Amino acid sequence: MALIYDGAIQDVIDSFAHLPGIGPKGAQRIAFHLLSTSENDVKHLAQAIITLREKVRFCEICGNVTEISPCAICQDPRRDHSVICVVEHASDIMAIENTAEYHGLYHVLGGAINPMGGIGPADLRIQELLTRLKDETVKEIILALNPNVEGEATNTYLSRLISPSGITVTRLASGLPVGADLEYADQVTLGRALAGRRSV
Amino acid sequence: MALIYDGAIQDVIDSFAHLPGIGPKGAQRIAFHLLSTSENDVKHLAQAIITLREKVRFCEICGNVTEISPCAICQDPRRDHSVICVVEHASDIMAIENTAEYHGLYHVLGGAINPMGGIGPADLRIQELLTRLKDETVKEIILALNPNVEGEATNTYLSRLISPSGITVTRLASGLPVGADLEYADQVTLGRALAGRRSV
Repeated sequence: MALIYDGAIQDVIDSFAHLPGIGPKGAQRIAFHLLSTSENDVKHLAQAIITLREKVRFCEICGNVTEISPCAICQDPRRDHSVICVVEHASDIMAIENTAEYHGLYHVLGGAINPMGGIGPADLRIQELLTRLKDETVKEIILALNPNVEGEATNTYLSRLISPSGITVTRLASGLPVGADLEYADQVTLGRALAGRRSV
Repeated sequence: MALIYDGAIQDVIDSFAHLPGIGPKGAQRIAFHLLSTSENDVKHLAQAIITLREKVRFCEICGNVTEISPCAICQDPRRDHSVICVVEHASDIMAIENTAEYHGLYHVLGGAINPMGGIGPADLRIQELLTRLKDETVKEIILALNPNVEGEATNTYLSRLISPSGITVTRLASGLPVGADLEYADQVTLGRALAGRRSV
Protein backbone atom coordinates (compact mmCIF):
# COMPACT_ATOMS: atom_id res chain seq x y z
CA MET A 1 0.00 0.00 0.00
CA ALA A 2 1.59 3.23 -1.11
CA LEU A 3 0.48 6.24 0.91
CA ILE A 4 0.45 9.59 -0.81
CA TYR A 5 1.41 12.66 1.18
CA ASP A 6 1.43 16.26 0.05
CA GLY A 7 4.31 18.38 -1.13
CA ALA A 8 7.61 18.26 0.69
CA ILE A 9 7.09 14.95 2.52
CA GLN A 10 6.09 13.04 -0.60
CA ASP A 11 9.00 14.61 -2.45
CA VAL A 12 11.47 13.23 0.09
CA ILE A 13 9.73 9.84 0.11
CA ASP A 14 9.90 9.64 -3.71
CA SER A 15 13.55 10.69 -3.76
CA PHE A 16 14.56 8.08 -1.18
CA ALA A 17 12.43 5.35 -2.77
CA HIS A 18 14.59 5.70 -5.90
CA LEU A 19 17.74 4.74 -4.00
CA PRO A 20 18.85 1.09 -4.10
CA GLY A 21 17.59 -1.07 -1.24
CA ILE A 22 14.92 1.40 -0.12
CA GLY A 23 11.26 0.74 -0.89
CA PRO A 24 8.29 3.12 -0.49
CA LYS A 25 7.66 2.02 3.13
CA GLY A 26 11.31 2.40 4.07
CA ALA A 27 11.40 5.81 2.39
CA GLN A 28 8.37 6.90 4.40
CA ARG A 29 10.02 5.73 7.61
CA ILE A 30 13.13 7.73 6.73
CA ALA A 31 11.09 10.86 5.93
CA PHE A 32 9.40 10.72 9.35
CA HIS A 33 12.74 10.02 10.97
CA LEU A 34 14.20 13.13 9.32
CA LEU A 35 11.31 15.20 10.67
CA SER A 36 12.25 14.28 14.22
CA THR A 37 16.04 14.52 13.75
CA SER A 38 17.97 17.64 14.76
CA GLU A 39 18.07 20.25 12.01
CA ASN A 40 21.88 20.14 12.03
CA ASP A 41 21.94 16.42 11.26
CA VAL A 42 19.47 16.89 8.42
CA LYS A 43 21.49 19.74 6.92
CA HIS A 44 24.62 17.66 7.31
CA LEU A 45 23.04 14.80 5.33
CA ALA A 46 21.95 17.15 2.54
CA GLN A 47 25.37 18.81 2.45
CA ALA A 48 27.19 15.46 2.46
CA ILE A 49 25.21 14.40 -0.62
CA ILE A 50 26.05 17.62 -2.46
CA THR A 51 29.72 17.49 -1.44
CA LEU A 52 29.92 13.88 -2.64
CA ARG A 53 29.01 14.88 -6.17
CA GLU A 54 31.16 18.01 -6.12
CA LYS A 55 34.34 16.40 -4.78
CA VAL A 56 34.31 12.74 -5.68
CA ARG A 57 35.19 11.70 -9.21
CA PHE A 58 36.58 8.61 -10.92
CA CYS A 59 40.36 8.19 -11.24
CA GLU A 60 41.39 8.85 -14.85
CA ILE A 61 43.73 5.84 -14.79
CA CYS A 62 42.07 3.05 -12.81
CA GLY A 63 38.45 4.23 -12.45
CA ASN A 64 38.50 4.11 -8.63
CA VAL A 65 36.46 6.70 -6.73
CA THR A 66 38.69 9.50 -5.51
CA GLU A 67 38.81 13.18 -4.60
CA ILE A 68 42.09 13.61 -6.51
CA SER A 69 42.83 12.19 -9.96
CA PRO A 70 44.95 10.10 -10.47
CA CYS A 71 43.88 8.44 -7.20
CA ALA A 72 46.09 7.83 -4.16
CA ILE A 73 46.66 4.17 -5.16
CA CYS A 74 47.76 5.00 -8.74
CA GLN A 75 50.06 7.76 -7.43
CA ASP A 76 51.64 5.70 -4.65
CA PRO A 77 55.29 4.87 -5.59
CA ARG A 78 55.47 2.21 -2.83
CA ARG A 79 52.85 0.07 -4.56
CA ASP A 80 53.79 -2.60 -7.07
CA HIS A 81 53.12 -1.01 -10.47
CA SER A 82 53.79 -4.29 -12.28
CA VAL A 83 50.52 -5.90 -11.16
CA ILE A 84 46.99 -4.74 -12.03
CA CYS A 85 43.98 -6.25 -10.32
CA VAL A 86 40.87 -5.99 -12.54
CA VAL A 87 37.56 -5.58 -10.68
CA GLU A 88 33.98 -4.98 -11.79
CA HIS A 89 33.14 -2.05 -9.55
CA ALA A 90 35.00 0.61 -7.59
CA SER A 91 33.43 -0.75 -4.40
CA ASP A 92 35.31 -4.04 -4.92
CA ILE A 93 38.64 -2.22 -4.52
CA MET A 94 38.01 -1.46 -0.86
CA ALA A 95 37.10 -5.10 -0.20
CA ILE A 96 40.48 -6.20 -1.61
CA GLU A 97 42.37 -3.38 0.14
CA ASN A 98 40.88 -4.56 3.44
CA THR A 99 42.56 -7.96 3.06
CA ALA A 100 45.96 -6.17 3.25
CA GLU A 101 47.22 -8.99 0.99
CA TYR A 102 47.54 -6.96 -2.20
CA HIS A 103 49.89 -4.08 -2.95
CA GLY A 104 49.53 -3.62 -6.70
CA LEU A 105 47.31 -1.35 -8.77
CA TYR A 106 43.66 -1.70 -9.81
CA HIS A 107 41.49 -1.33 -12.87
CA VAL A 108 37.72 -0.88 -12.65
CA LEU A 109 35.85 -2.39 -15.62
CA GLY A 110 32.48 -0.91 -14.70
CA GLY A 111 30.71 -4.28 -14.87
CA ALA A 112 31.05 -7.64 -16.58
CA ILE A 113 30.16 -8.92 -20.04
CA ASN A 114 26.46 -9.78 -20.01
CA PRO A 115 24.91 -10.29 -23.46
CA MET A 116 21.44 -10.87 -21.93
CA GLY A 117 21.69 -7.49 -20.17
CA GLY A 118 23.05 -5.80 -23.29
CA ILE A 119 26.55 -5.25 -21.88
CA GLY A 120 29.28 -6.08 -24.36
CA PRO A 121 33.06 -5.59 -24.21
CA ALA A 122 32.70 -2.10 -25.70
CA ASP A 123 30.62 -0.97 -22.72
CA LEU A 124 33.42 -1.80 -20.27
CA ARG A 125 36.70 -0.01 -19.62
CA ILE A 126 38.65 -2.66 -21.53
CA GLN A 127 40.26 -0.26 -24.03
CA GLU A 128 41.58 1.80 -21.10
CA LEU A 129 43.07 -1.38 -19.62
CA LEU A 130 44.85 -2.26 -22.88
CA THR A 131 46.27 1.26 -23.05
CA ARG A 132 47.76 0.79 -19.56
CA LEU A 133 49.50 -2.41 -20.70
CA LYS A 134 51.35 -0.69 -23.57
CA ASP A 135 54.36 0.67 -21.67
CA GLU A 136 55.45 -2.85 -20.55
CA THR A 137 55.65 -2.05 -16.80
CA VAL A 138 52.80 -4.47 -16.15
CA LYS A 139 53.80 -8.11 -15.79
CA GLU A 140 50.64 -9.61 -14.28
CA ILE A 141 46.90 -9.06 -14.55
CA ILE A 142 44.80 -10.51 -11.71
CA LEU A 143 41.17 -10.99 -12.73
CA ALA A 144 39.07 -10.42 -9.59
CA LEU A 145 35.58 -10.53 -11.12
CA ASN A 146 32.53 -11.90 -9.40
CA PRO A 147 32.44 -15.73 -9.58
CA ASN A 148 29.25 -15.94 -11.65
CA VAL A 149 28.39 -16.51 -15.32
CA GLU A 150 29.08 -12.89 -16.35
CA GLY A 151 32.36 -12.83 -14.43
CA GLU A 152 33.49 -16.10 -16.02
CA ALA A 153 32.64 -14.83 -19.51
CA THR A 154 34.64 -11.66 -18.86
CA ASN A 155 37.54 -13.70 -17.45
CA THR A 156 37.69 -15.77 -20.63
CA TYR A 157 37.38 -12.73 -22.90
CA LEU A 158 40.11 -10.75 -21.12
CA SER A 159 42.42 -13.72 -20.80
CA ARG A 160 42.26 -14.42 -24.57
CA LEU A 161 42.79 -10.73 -25.28
CA ILE A 162 45.77 -10.15 -22.98
CA SER A 163 47.64 -13.48 -22.82
CA PRO A 164 49.12 -13.26 -26.36
CA SER A 165 51.07 -10.13 -25.31
CA GLY A 166 53.08 -12.25 -22.82
CA ILE A 167 51.55 -10.75 -19.69
CA THR A 168 50.63 -13.32 -17.04
CA VAL A 169 46.86 -13.44 -16.51
CA THR A 170 45.66 -14.98 -13.24
CA ARG A 171 42.30 -15.20 -11.52
CA LEU A 172 41.14 -15.44 -7.93
CA ALA A 173 40.96 -18.96 -6.50
CA SER A 174 37.53 -20.58 -6.39
CA GLY A 175 36.89 -22.85 -3.41
CA LEU A 176 35.30 -23.13 -0.02
CA PRO A 177 34.93 -19.84 1.84
CA VAL A 178 36.80 -19.78 5.15
CA GLY A 179 34.53 -20.94 7.99
CA ALA A 180 32.19 -22.79 5.61
CA ASP A 181 30.75 -26.21 6.28
CA LEU A 182 31.80 -28.79 3.67
CA GLU A 183 28.46 -30.60 4.05
CA TYR A 184 26.53 -27.51 2.95
CA ALA A 185 28.84 -26.37 0.16
CA ASP A 186 27.18 -26.35 -3.25
CA GLN A 187 28.49 -28.89 -5.76
CA VAL A 188 30.06 -26.35 -8.13
CA THR A 189 32.04 -24.70 -5.34
CA LEU A 190 33.13 -28.07 -3.96
CA GLY A 191 34.11 -29.21 -7.44
CA ARG A 192 36.22 -26.08 -7.90
CA ALA A 193 37.81 -26.56 -4.47
CA LEU A 194 38.79 -30.13 -5.47
CA ALA A 195 40.11 -29.10 -8.87
CA GLY A 196 42.13 -26.27 -7.30
CA ARG A 197 43.56 -28.35 -4.40
CA ARG A 198 47.02 -27.38 -3.17
CA SER A 199 49.80 -29.33 -1.46
CA VAL A 200 50.08 -28.64 2.26
CA MET B 1 33.00 -5.93 7.48
CA ALA B 2 32.97 -2.14 7.61
CA LEU B 3 35.04 -0.56 4.87
CA ILE B 4 36.51 2.86 5.56
CA TYR B 5 36.71 5.34 2.69
CA ASP B 6 38.21 8.82 2.72
CA GLY B 7 36.48 12.14 3.09
CA ALA B 8 33.29 12.85 1.20
CA ILE B 9 32.33 9.23 0.41
CA GLN B 10 32.68 8.07 4.00
CA ASP B 11 30.76 11.14 5.16
CA VAL B 12 27.80 10.19 2.96
CA ILE B 13 28.03 6.53 4.03
CA ASP B 14 28.03 7.52 7.72
CA SER B 15 25.11 9.91 7.24
CA PHE B 16 22.98 7.31 5.46
CA ALA B 17 23.94 4.54 7.90
CA HIS B 18 22.30 6.61 10.67
CA LEU B 19 18.92 6.48 8.93
CA PRO B 20 16.44 3.78 10.01
CA GLY B 21 16.56 0.58 7.99
CA ILE B 22 19.94 1.33 6.36
CA GLY B 23 23.07 -0.50 7.51
CA PRO B 24 26.70 0.28 6.61
CA LYS B 25 26.61 -1.99 3.52
CA GLY B 26 23.37 -0.45 2.29
CA ALA B 27 24.75 3.04 2.90
CA GLN B 28 27.84 2.18 0.85
CA ARG B 29 25.65 0.90 -1.97
CA ILE B 30 23.65 4.15 -1.90
CA ALA B 31 26.82 6.28 -1.91
CA PHE B 32 28.10 4.49 -5.03
CA HIS B 33 24.66 4.77 -6.59
CA LEU B 34 24.67 8.53 -6.00
CA LEU B 35 28.06 8.79 -7.71
CA SER B 36 26.62 7.33 -10.90
CA THR B 37 23.28 9.20 -10.76
CA SER B 38 22.70 12.39 -12.72
CA GLU B 39 23.81 15.52 -10.86
CA ASN B 40 20.27 16.92 -11.08
CA ASP B 41 18.78 13.93 -9.28
CA VAL B 42 21.42 14.16 -6.55
CA LYS B 43 20.79 17.89 -6.06
CA HIS B 44 17.06 17.22 -6.02
CA LEU B 45 17.50 14.66 -3.24
CA ALA B 46 19.60 17.08 -1.15
CA GLN B 47 17.15 19.92 -1.76
CA ALA B 48 14.14 17.73 -0.91
CA ILE B 49 15.72 16.91 2.46
CA ILE B 50 16.35 20.57 3.24
CA THR B 51 12.85 21.63 2.08
CA LEU B 52 11.32 18.91 4.24
CA ARG B 53 12.76 20.43 7.39
CA GLU B 54 12.04 24.00 6.32
CA LYS B 55 8.42 23.49 5.32
CA VAL B 56 7.03 20.54 7.22
CA ARG B 57 6.00 21.02 10.85
CA PHE B 58 3.61 19.36 13.27
CA CYS B 59 0.01 20.58 13.47
CA GLU B 60 -0.47 22.59 16.67
CA ILE B 61 -3.80 20.87 17.31
CA CYS B 62 -3.50 17.21 16.33
CA GLY B 63 0.25 16.71 15.87
CA ASN B 64 -0.05 15.54 12.24
CA VAL B 65 2.72 16.45 9.81
CA THR B 66 1.70 19.43 7.71
CA GLU B 67 3.01 22.41 5.78
CA ILE B 68 0.29 24.65 7.29
CA SER B 69 -0.75 24.68 10.95
CA PRO B 70 -3.50 23.85 11.89
CA CYS B 71 -3.36 21.06 9.31
CA ALA B 72 -5.81 20.51 6.44
CA ILE B 73 -7.72 17.84 8.40
CA CYS B 74 -8.20 20.02 11.53
CA GLN B 75 -9.28 22.96 9.34
CA ASP B 76 -11.70 20.98 7.17
CA PRO B 77 -15.31 21.97 8.08
CA ARG B 78 -16.70 18.93 6.20
CA ARG B 79 -15.03 16.52 8.63
CA ASP B 80 -16.82 15.27 11.72
CA HIS B 81 -15.37 17.37 14.56
CA SER B 82 -17.20 15.28 17.19
CA VAL B 83 -14.89 12.27 16.78
CA ILE B 84 -11.15 12.13 17.48
CA CYS B 85 -9.07 9.14 16.47
CA VAL B 86 -6.01 8.79 18.71
CA VAL B 87 -2.90 7.30 17.04
CA GLU B 88 0.67 6.74 18.14
CA HIS B 89 2.48 8.32 15.21
CA ALA B 90 1.70 10.82 12.47
CA SER B 91 2.43 8.09 9.90
CA ASP B 92 -0.57 6.11 11.23
CA ILE B 93 -2.92 8.90 10.11
CA MET B 94 -2.26 8.27 6.43
CA ALA B 95 -2.91 4.54 6.90
CA ILE B 96 -6.36 5.31 8.35
CA GLU B 97 -7.06 8.03 5.75
CA ASN B 98 -6.36 5.46 3.03
CA THR B 99 -9.21 3.26 4.24
CA ALA B 100 -11.64 6.12 3.33
CA GLU B 101 -13.77 4.81 6.23
CA TYR B 102 -13.09 7.60 8.69
CA HIS B 103 -14.07 11.25 8.45
CA GLY B 104 -13.34 12.60 11.93
CA LEU B 105 -10.29 14.30 13.39
CA TYR B 106 -7.02 12.84 14.69
CA HIS B 107 -4.72 13.20 17.65
CA VAL B 108 -1.10 12.02 17.57
CA LEU B 109 0.20 10.84 20.96
CA GLY B 110 3.82 10.56 19.87
CA GLY B 111 4.10 6.96 21.10
CA ALA B 112 2.58 4.62 23.68
CA ILE B 113 3.08 4.15 27.41
CA ASN B 114 6.13 1.93 27.87
CA PRO B 115 7.54 1.85 31.42
CA MET B 116 10.43 -0.44 30.33
CA GLY B 117 11.41 2.10 27.67
CA GLY B 118 11.03 5.00 30.09
CA ILE B 119 7.96 6.46 28.35
CA GLY B 120 5.27 7.52 30.80
CA PRO B 121 1.98 9.38 30.24
CA ALA B 122 3.76 12.72 30.75
CA ASP B 123 5.95 12.03 27.68
CA LEU B 124 2.94 11.70 25.40
CA ARG B 125 0.58 14.39 24.06
CA ILE B 126 -2.16 13.38 26.53
CA GLN B 127 -2.54 16.81 28.13
CA GLU B 128 -3.09 18.30 24.67
CA LEU B 129 -5.80 15.68 24.05
CA LEU B 130 -7.59 16.54 27.31
CA THR B 131 -7.49 20.24 26.38
CA ARG B 132 -9.23 19.42 23.07
CA LEU B 133 -12.03 17.62 24.97
CA LYS B 134 -12.87 20.68 27.10
CA ASP B 135 -15.22 22.50 24.72
CA GLU B 136 -17.65 19.55 24.58
CA THR B 137 -17.74 19.26 20.75
CA VAL B 138 -16.11 15.84 21.00
CA LYS B 139 -18.51 12.95 21.63
CA GLU B 140 -16.27 9.97 20.82
CA ILE B 141 -12.62 9.05 21.14
CA ILE B 142 -11.43 6.14 18.96
CA LEU B 143 -8.23 4.58 20.30
CA ALA B 144 -6.26 3.36 17.26
CA LEU B 145 -3.03 2.34 18.98
CA ASN B 146 -0.87 -0.57 17.92
CA PRO B 147 -2.27 -3.90 19.18
CA ASN B 148 0.69 -4.74 21.44
CA VAL B 149 1.46 -4.54 25.17
CA GLU B 150 2.30 -0.82 25.09
CA GLY B 151 -0.79 -0.01 23.02
CA GLU B 152 -3.02 -1.99 25.40
CA ALA B 153 -1.55 -0.20 28.43
CA THR B 154 -2.16 3.16 26.78
CA ASN B 155 -5.71 2.12 25.82
CA THR B 156 -6.49 1.27 29.45
CA TYR B 157 -4.87 4.44 30.76
CA LEU B 158 -6.69 6.77 28.34
CA SER B 159 -10.01 4.97 28.72
CA ARG B 160 -9.91 5.38 32.52
CA LEU B 161 -8.89 9.01 32.11
CA ILE B 162 -11.54 10.04 29.58
CA SER B 163 -14.57 7.79 30.26
CA PRO B 164 -15.63 9.61 33.49
CA SER B 165 -16.23 12.80 31.48
CA GLY B 166 -19.05 11.04 29.59
CA ILE B 167 -17.24 10.86 26.25
CA THR B 168 -17.59 7.48 24.49
CA VAL B 169 -14.21 5.76 24.25
CA THR B 170 -13.90 3.00 21.64
CA ARG B 171 -11.01 1.00 20.26
CA LEU B 172 -10.23 -0.69 16.96
CA ALA B 173 -11.51 -4.25 16.62
CA SER B 174 -9.02 -7.04 17.18
CA GLY B 175 -9.47 -10.12 15.02
CA LEU B 176 -8.31 -11.94 11.93
CA PRO B 177 -6.77 -9.74 9.25
CA VAL B 178 -8.66 -9.90 5.94
CA GLY B 179 -7.18 -12.60 3.70
CA ALA B 180 -5.61 -14.45 6.62
CA ASP B 181 -5.66 -18.21 7.03
CA LEU B 182 -7.48 -19.33 10.17
CA GLU B 183 -5.16 -22.31 10.55
CA TYR B 184 -2.12 -20.07 10.86
CA ALA B 185 -3.64 -17.34 13.06
CA ASP B 186 -1.90 -17.03 16.44
CA GLN B 187 -3.97 -18.05 19.48
CA VAL B 188 -4.31 -14.54 20.94
CA THR B 189 -5.64 -13.10 17.67
CA LEU B 190 -8.01 -16.04 17.21
CA GLY B 191 -9.17 -15.66 20.83
CA ARG B 192 -9.88 -11.97 20.24
CA ALA B 193 -11.71 -12.75 17.01
CA LEU B 194 -13.93 -15.21 18.89
CA ALA B 195 -14.56 -12.83 21.78
CA GLY B 196 -15.40 -10.02 19.38
CA ARG B 197 -17.67 -12.09 17.08
CA ARG B 198 -20.54 -10.23 15.41
CA SER B 199 -23.93 -11.36 14.16
CA VAL B 200 -24.15 -11.71 10.39
